[in-house]
Amino acid sequence: MPRTVDRTARLSAIGDAVVALAVDSGFAAVTIRSVAERVGASTSVVTHYVGGRDEMLRVAVRREIEARREQAENAMANHRGARAVRALIDWAVLTADEATHRFWLALIVAAPTEPVLRAELDAFNAWWDARLRNMLREAGVTELEHAADLLNVVVDGLVVGAFDEGAPWPQARRRQVLATTWRALGIAG
Amino acid sequence: MPRTVDRTARLSAIGDAVVALAVDSGFAAVTIRSVAERVGASTSVVTHYVGGRDEMLRVAVRREIEARREQAENAMANHRGARAVRALIDWAVLTADEATHRFWLALIVAAPTEPVLRAELDAFNAWWDARLRNMLREAGVTELEHAADLLNVVVDGLVVGAFDEGAPWPQARRRQVLATTWRALGIAG
Repeated sequence: MPRTVDRTARLSAIGDAVVALAVDSGFAAVTIRSVAERVGASTSVVTHYVGGRDEMLRVAVRREIEARREQAENAMANHRGARAVRALIDWAVLTADEATHRFWLALIVAAPTEPVLRAELDAFNAWWDARLRNMLREAGVTELEHAADLLNVVVDGLVVGAFDEGAPWPQARRRQVLATTWRALGIAG
Repeated sequence: MPRTVDRTARLSAIGDAVVALAVDSGFAAVTIRSVAERVGASTSVVTHYVGGRDEMLRVAVRREIEARREQAENAMANHRGARAVRALIDWAVLTADEATHRFWLALIVAAPTEPVLRAELDAFNAWWDARLRNMLREAGVTELEHAADLLNVVVDGLVVGAFDEGAPWPQARRRQVLATTWRALGIAG
């Protein structure tokens, strides 16, 4: 990276490298060295901007999650209740691409041994759970905890399903699972 | 390992080490060296019994999967149709312990980059899918593909859910998700 590149651009390049490495090989492969190699800088340039590995993971993962959260908010915008629930879940399992799903899986798998990742995942889950419960309430669902549990299981299952079978599921198969889920919860369109 | 230990016992110790390392740290951490350290043998003793890393993974993962398959078959024994479906899924998400779930997640995550693991997972999935479809047919379910998809999503989602939240779900929460799933498929008890 040339010296004239500003701080934001450098942090952005470092963040992109962290995410790309995590998507390809998991967070164990994300080190100051591997990130420096990927952005074409020395390790001391990387540590100048992010301190150590934990701070690098925190900055990169928070930035990535914020971008995803903004996409999710946009998908829900102008909807309420059942429609908003379906828009959020559709975004998570139909709109988000395979790289995004690989990123989430990498995050979930690494969280037990990387407290920095656990904290970022917990913060996202707290936002997601509050949003989801609020919209389910608006939709007139009474068993909020059970409904949220079922939706979270279906989202996680559809994200993992692609990797279990070795190829992403066609949209039609995912939509079918979602359609059954909406009927089970009484919030079909 | 002492020289008098026979071949079966050595392969068994190597297999246990492979599974334990994969459960703790993922398959990237499973090497001839790390397995040799764990069983207290030299790397040349390990390669004497399993050849190279790929053969070691194949032998260990096949043995572990066979043991799980036998548990699943025992859970289904003496049941048919809807009862057999519920027994299989209950075994997968209620009876199997956290280490087993971590093993499956490690297998799914590593399969895209480790053809040996992909092949073992595919073989298990072929058995699982054939068994499940057969039992769903016996249970009078007509939309076999959709029903199997929903069940696979729920199983994967319940296995991953524990890691997403950072702690295993209590049995009651899992049972509730399963109860909704049985009703959605028309195969409740």
